[in-house]
Amino acid sequence: MSSTFSSATARPIKLDSLGLRFKTRIDAAVLEVLDQRLLPDREEWVTVESAAKMVELIKALAVRGAPLIGVAAALALVIEESKLALDTDSVDVKKIAKLKSAAGELRAARPTAVNLMWSMDRMLRALSASKSMLSEAVAIFNEDVEMCERMGDHGSPLIKDGDGVLTICNTGGLATVGIGTAFAVLRKAHERGVKLHVYACETRPLLQGGRLTTWELEKGAIPHTLITDSMAATLMRQGKIQSVVTGVDRLSARGDFANKIGTYSLAVLAKHHGIPFYPVAPTSTVDASCADGSAIEIEQRSADEVRGFVSPAQQIRWAPADVEVYNPSFDVTPAELVTKFVLDQGVMSPDEFRIAVKRGL
Amino acid sequence: MSSTFSSATARPIKLDSLGLRFKTRIDAAVLEVLDQRLLPDREEWVTVESAAKMVELIKALAVRGAPLIGVAAALALVIEESKLALDTDSVDVKKIAKLKSAAGELRAARPTAVNLMWSMDRMLRALSASKSMLSEAVAIFNEDVEMCERMGDHGSPLIKDGDGVLTICNTGGLATVGIGTAFAVLRKAHERGVKLHVYACETRPLLQGGRLTTWELEKGAIPHTLITDSMAATLMRQGKIQSVVTGVDRLSARGDFANKIGTYSLAVLAKHHGIPFYPVAPTSTVDASCADGSAIEIEQRSADEVRGFVSPAQQIRWAPADVEVYNPSFDVTPAELVTKFVLDQGVMSPDEFRIAVKRGL
Repeated sequence: MSSTFSSATARPIKLDSLGLRFKTRIDAAVLEVLDQRLLPDREEWVTVESAAKMVELIKALAVRGAPLIGVAAALALVIEESKLALDTDSVDVKKIAKLKSAAGELRAARPTAVNLMWSMDRMLRALSASKSMLSEAVAIFNEDVEMCERMGDHGSPLIKDGDGVLTICNTGGLATVGIGTAFAVLRKAHERGVKLHVYACETRPLLQGGRLTTWELEKGAIPHTLITDSMAATLMRQGKIQSVVTGVDRLSARGDFANKIGTYSLAVLAKHHGIPFYPVAPTSTVDASCADGSAIEIEQRSADEVRGFVSPAQQIRWAPADVEVYNPSFDVTPAELVTKFVLDQGVMSPDEFRIAVKRGL
Repeated sequence: MSSTFSSATARPIKLDSLGLRFKTRIDAAVLEVLDQRLLPDREEWVTVESAAKMVELIKALAVRGAPLIGVAAALALVIEESKLALDTDSVDVKKIAKLKSAAGELRAARPTAVNLMWSMDRMLRALSASKSMLSEAVAIFNEDVEMCERMGDHGSPLIKDGDGVLTICNTGGLATVGIGTAFAVLRKAHERGVKLHVYACETRPLLQGGRLTTWELEKGAIPHTLITDSMAATLMRQGKIQSVVTGVDRLSARGDFANKIGTYSLAVLAKHHGIPFYPVAPTSTVDASCADGSAIEIEQRSADEVRGFVSPAQQIRWAPADVEVYNPSFDVTPAELVTKFVLDQGVMSPDEFRIAVKRGL
């Protein structure tokens, strides 16, 4: 097994994205991730020397975004493998056990986003088949880039000239290794010359919309306005929103899906105002083994995130120090509220999606 | 006129509430307000020596809550009057002009909350009729206390044992000089021994729910949980919310009403989930001259409130420094989404309310 990593690195490999950098050298690999908690003001890159470090970064949301987490975890396993390759004392069976254990810990870092499970399954299959884990991780990376392009291509025609488009959380280059999921739809529409205006929900409690989506919209020169989550309804009533696009963290076979807390609220509000609602997801987010929304586990996070604002750079509390808090990281939106899914395989109604899943999407 | 203030103070007067203290001494009055921007961690009282100071405090939301603002502005005029009474050089006609000008500035401090206009109208009528402004302000104070009690009495039977009740912003003793508007309903139900659990929306951007309502709920030992505004929908879907109670900043003749941004969103979500929605308001909040919601002016506030969190004690920014922001302080909820209004005069459907307004509520 010690030859697996080095034989795959005969040709140096370099992977770059907005939030992740990876390169191989002989017998070693270097992985760096952007600490997303410090954006938009500070762009600090962290070197990931172990799977344990990646687990810590994912749990802290320094590395976030369902597709990005999947790719980052796969590359973290490659880092583990490259370290083990240097350790000539250890026998292969021990190395394999170590990699399996690391994959298990990575898998548990965020329970809701299914891309992570999908990516760990692929990596372990490669390991079991004595295939190159590096090649598998590179394939996962490249597939994500490709799926982002296709989501953008399929979804962008849904955006028309003059549209106001509402979005939540961050679904762009930071959340994937390509141009994003829902963000890819906005970006491709903008690149085609469609005049759109993006309204970004700030996305309490961790403010990925206020911190990250605004940063990406600014980088892409796409016209935008930041709002609090509570303002979406009034914009809809004023006729300023023509569609809602969101990401997806886990898409069940029925079409119910988990996404950032606040997504379900937007889906209900869009329905009430007759505004189309489009969740955007790559195939890696579909969990065919999950029958419907009730089977999706929802991660509960720290009360301090709601009592104030928490980041490594600044921590403040505005609520009483011991106030009881409910802090689910995600909510579940039933398929009934979805107008169309935008997948890398095409645009589908919930009915069409269910048929596609049965056929083995 | 210089005798008006001193003749009214023959008997010393003392008024106390959670957020306001007023007392008279011979020929002078002292007004103190709690700086609500520093709660829950610091309870700092500010002496109000002029109407101009009160204008500044209202604009900064140090003094807030539609009913409280009305009472506080009336007492600020009394402070002006007591200062003018000491100035024996000035003639009465000049003093009256100064008080009218001060009332005009107070009226403009917050354009949406109608209690302020209602209170200034009453104070100027007293002035024009050479009646005691002090007595009028004391009457406004005492009426507010009384109206809060009645709203609580009328509304609390709507809350049943085991209910989860959702609320937004702060509508309690801090927002009024009595026990509150929507909060009075919760408090009276709790006092009657009804087992309820309050879910408080944090109410971005200024977090009156997270900072003030939690503080009052804790003081009143009413069981509660703090949530971000984006979590309300998912709690409704889980069956944890049996009713929504909110305050009102301006209630039009049609029954459409302005309240804190996020209220309209809760009204739509409640409708979707079949949950009763109860706005709670004193008569002073009814603006019979305002035909419907479209006639209500909505105040736009500073972008910095949405780019981060702003208080005199702590200011942080998490969004890009120059990101464009939409920051309406209020939204408008159409009467169609209201189950019942809880007024100090009783519980009414929107139809009953419209009839009552025509009859001169």
